[in-house]
Amino acid sequence: MTRTVYVNGDYLPETEAKVSIFDRGFLMADAVYEVTSVLGGKLVDFAGHTARLQRSLSELEMVAPCTMDELLAIHRELVARNDLDEGGIYLQITRGAAEDRDFVWPDPEKVPAGIVLFTFAKPLVDNKTLDEGIKVISVEDQRWARRDIKTTQLLYPSFAKMQAKKAGAADAWLVEDGFVTEGSANNAYIVKDGVIITRQLSTEILHGITRAAILRFAREAQMQVEERPFTIAEAQAADEAFVTSATGFAQPVIAIDGATIGTGVPGTISKRLREIYTEEMRKAAI
Amino acid sequence: MTRTVYVNGDYLPETEAKVSIFDRGFLMADAVYEVTSVLGGKLVDFAGHTARLQRSLSELEMVAPCTMDELLAIHRELVARNDLDEGGIYLQITRGAAEDRDFVWPDPEKVPAGIVLFTFAKPLVDNKTLDEGIKVISVEDQRWARRDIKTTQLLYPSFAKMQAKKAGAADAWLVEDGFVTEGSANNAYIVKDGVIITRQLSTEILHGITRAAILRFAREAQMQVEERPFTIAEAQAADEAFVTSATGFAQPVIAIDGATIGTGVPGTISKRLREIYTEEMRKAAI
Repeated sequence: MTRTVYVNGDYLPETEAKVSIFDRGFLMADAVYEVTSVLGGKLVDFAGHTARLQRSLSELEMVAPCTMDELLAIHRELVARNDLDEGGIYLQITRGAAEDRDFVWPDPEKVPAGIVLFTFAKPLVDNKTLDEGIKVISVEDQRWARRDIKTTQLLYPSFAKMQAKKAGAADAWLVEDGFVTEGSANNAYIVKDGVIITRQLSTEILHGITRAAILRFAREAQMQVEERPFTIAEAQAADEAFVTSATGFAQPVIAIDGATIGTGVPGTISKRLREIYTEEMRKAAI
Repeated sequence: MTRTVYVNGDYLPETEAKVSIFDRGFLMADAVYEVTSVLGGKLVDFAGHTARLQRSLSELEMVAPCTMDELLAIHRELVARNDLDEGGIYLQITRGAAEDRDFVWPDPEKVPAGIVLFTFAKPLVDNKTLDEGIKVISVEDQRWARRDIKTTQLLYPSFAKMQAKKAGAADAWLVEDGFVTEGSANNAYIVKDGVIITRQLSTEILHGITRAAILRFAREAQMQVEERPFTIAEAQAADEAFVTSATGFAQPVIAIDGATIGTGVPGTISKRLREIYTEEMRKAAI
């Protein structure tokens, strides 16, 4: 089945899904995005994603091309047209295609924002990688300063992921001034003596929608949470480690830079949080 | 006249110039670019631009979609088809359009690089702004760490330019750890007691093709050059200031953060370097 995608107002076969070469998303990464996961054909934490999207747009003084209700309708239409049961929906909004390339922003009255959405099928719940846990390496965090805005400036995270792959690992943790910021496309956590430790929110990391839910569920389950930076050495000496993201939920990490974490198998707290998250999100999905 | 542009092997009217939404240049700024200026229908310092392009590609382990000779032929064909006398040619190479969005790079054997070129007409020599000089403001440098690679991650430079515009200035100088790195899309210089001062090359700034030529001409003209960082305060107390870029050549700067530089008119050394550069490049253009 050819995937149906959404591009600037039209539902199109993916082979015909194109944008102008003058779209500022293409020419200067002047674009923000969100990825919403789909469970049982329903959207997971859609309200969280649209809230963050609106914040990203606002920080960059971009105008949304439609209302959040219209965005919900497009998401649902894509799920239906693609008969999507489990996976996700990628959404990208750009500052549109002006007549020519210019660092100066176009007038939003004259140049409407660009909008692109597409679905992808992916097993989120029954996923062998997650049963076994992933290995990560550490690399220097070379990204721009505003990681709290979810922009398409993803060249470095992609590069870091490739460094990991070459080193026989699945992902990279980014390190700045000696402390872990986050993973290439996820938030990073360690567990020591029952305490869940993850870096506090700031402009230095993405304000993960899954992160917010996981920490809420952890606290509701009477688990102790400490929001503070940690080093790779501290992580290597931890009892457990994991990462969270929209389509990865909570993924156990079993080795960092070649050092085994705990007993080398997914930890009980990581696994428990993954179970709670999956259960709660399945119930709350819309 | 409708502009003719080049997209992935085809010469097309600009209105039909489109790329797949799955192009990695669009989805994750996985792309590099060059802008070559055109004087009298000829290409300025093309060898310099292709050398830097090859370095950018190499640093990101990207494979060029064609030889540099083929690139030259495309540039010339675009100049001819668009009857371009003065202006520039924008070239962007991306890591291509894989079947789906993935942080992991596609196999270059299966997914060819994407390539886009377009011309723009612009007066480069007789340009009123340059006779009068520009005002700049300073902003914090929030870009990623590898500014020596000419990628399309230009959201922040574009943002900085808008901050300048709102403040009634033409451009922004970026400041990191108290020292100027460069302008939003150009290299920055000051002149004090006859000495031309500009930041030394490193990963922190773009290795400007125009910068290299300007410094060579300055030294050939027996001017003294110091390559070292400088502060905004030092710049405000300088006798002259200017910026260099492919399509701006050497542009005088007459005010920084509201402080007048020298006597508030373009300095003699800036003007002389602009004259030499224009003359030499017109002779050497191919």
